[in-house]
Amino acid sequence: YKPNSAFYEMWGEEGINALQRTIAEIHMIAPDVPVILDAKRADIGNTNAGYVEAAFDFLQADAITVHPYLGAEALQPFLERKDKGIIVLCRTSNPGADEFQDLYVNAHGEKLFHRVARHVANAWNKNGNCALVVGATYPEELREVRKIVGDMPILIPGIGAQGGDVEKTVHAGKDSLGQGMIINSSRGIIFASKSEDFADAARHETEKLRDLINKYR
Amino acid sequence: YKPNSAFYEMWGEEGINALQRTIAEIHMIAPDVPVILDAKRADIGNTNAGYVEAAFDFLQADAITVHPYLGAEALQPFLERKDKGIIVLCRTSNPGADEFQDLYVNAHGEKLFHRVARHVANAWNKNGNCALVVGATYPEELREVRKIVGDMPILIPGIGAQGGDVEKTVHAGKDSLGQGMIINSSRGIIFASKSEDFADAARHETEKLRDLINKYR
Repeated sequence: YKPNSAFYEMWGEEGINALQRTIAEIHMIAPDVPVILDAKRADIGNTNAGYVEAAFDFLQADAITVHPYLGAEALQPFLERKDKGIIVLCRTSNPGADEFQDLYVNAHGEKLFHRVARHVANAWNKNGNCALVVGATYPEELREVRKIVGDMPILIPGIGAQGGDVEKTVHAGKDSLGQGMIINSSRGIIFASKSEDFADAARHETEKLRDLINKYR
Repeated sequence: YKPNSAFYEMWGEEGINALQRTIAEIHMIAPDVPVILDAKRADIGNTNAGYVEAAFDFLQADAITVHPYLGAEALQPFLERKDKGIIVLCRTSNPGADEFQDLYVNAHGEKLFHRVARHVANAWNKNGNCALVVGATYPEELREVRKIVGDMPILIPGIGAQGGDVEKTVHAGKDSLGQGMIINSSRGIIFASKSEDFADAARHETEKLRDLINKYR
């Protein structure tokens, strides 16, 4: 196996430092914009303490995505960071998300992802720093989660490359004030153009998405 | 926040390359010993394809731990690597593992972690490259998983720093041939001594654990 130089830049010397510099640049140019690290961290408490240091202190991210499977006890190092956002995977955007997330966990029609939403909203959010991930590819499930968690923010991936519909997403996901959603398109914006005009193309796609979101709020 | 130089070595220029060199060194010194990356990867398929390249092609690990929450569809890039071991988190070793993993998912007393074990054994293991993670801190749950998965290998963390009992673990975890367990102690061995004799101390702890495991097989 012979990695090319771009690969070395990605995984070798440049990787984590390039990410750190990118985040520092964003904080300088747009200090009001929170940087979310979609790292899906999912380890035991001792290891998560290291991830907290890496994500928040070294990289200076403002929020991070984490997995619920190991429970609140494992996530304590994240949850106790009152100054940061902890965004828990609930109903993910991928086609096979239902395999475990839709299992019924009691006789009253509650599914696993409903239970995750309920636990995060009622028990994990003591510092008011929690949010949930629910994919735009599943508007019905998004509506159900919104009902469970009240006005807690929801991070909604799956618009753009993954095919989620903006209108359905906003109708299903908005809170009582018509907000509370972080709707993100990653590949749809980053890869809007592969030529010289990539910056303008990305900006254009971002503004188009913003306007579409606001239209349906 | 002012990171010290050890911190930079860990997260900065040295991090991923140090890991790559460590694994290359292990492969050279002990070519028969598989290197397991306990990275608990847990993303959607597109991102997992990148993790596959990083873990197996760049780092040259022989196996990796992954999360079940997103389902087999998201894990395809891992599962289709017939030459590598894919070790799925089932019943983790941390004290709060029961919060979601012990939820009953049907009326016949099947819990979520039982279901994960069953799916991995019956549906995900088409290439015969799957294994499960079950913590040594829960011998009863380990016994239940062994019953579900037959002779599939089980990676068993939680011995050492986390307090798991070797005798109970081996009795609960061994397969029909008295093997099929990868029992690992990480901190108990790595941090056996913090003085100059760290290498001898680590070797001593490793041999002690190996002998203890063999005693109870």
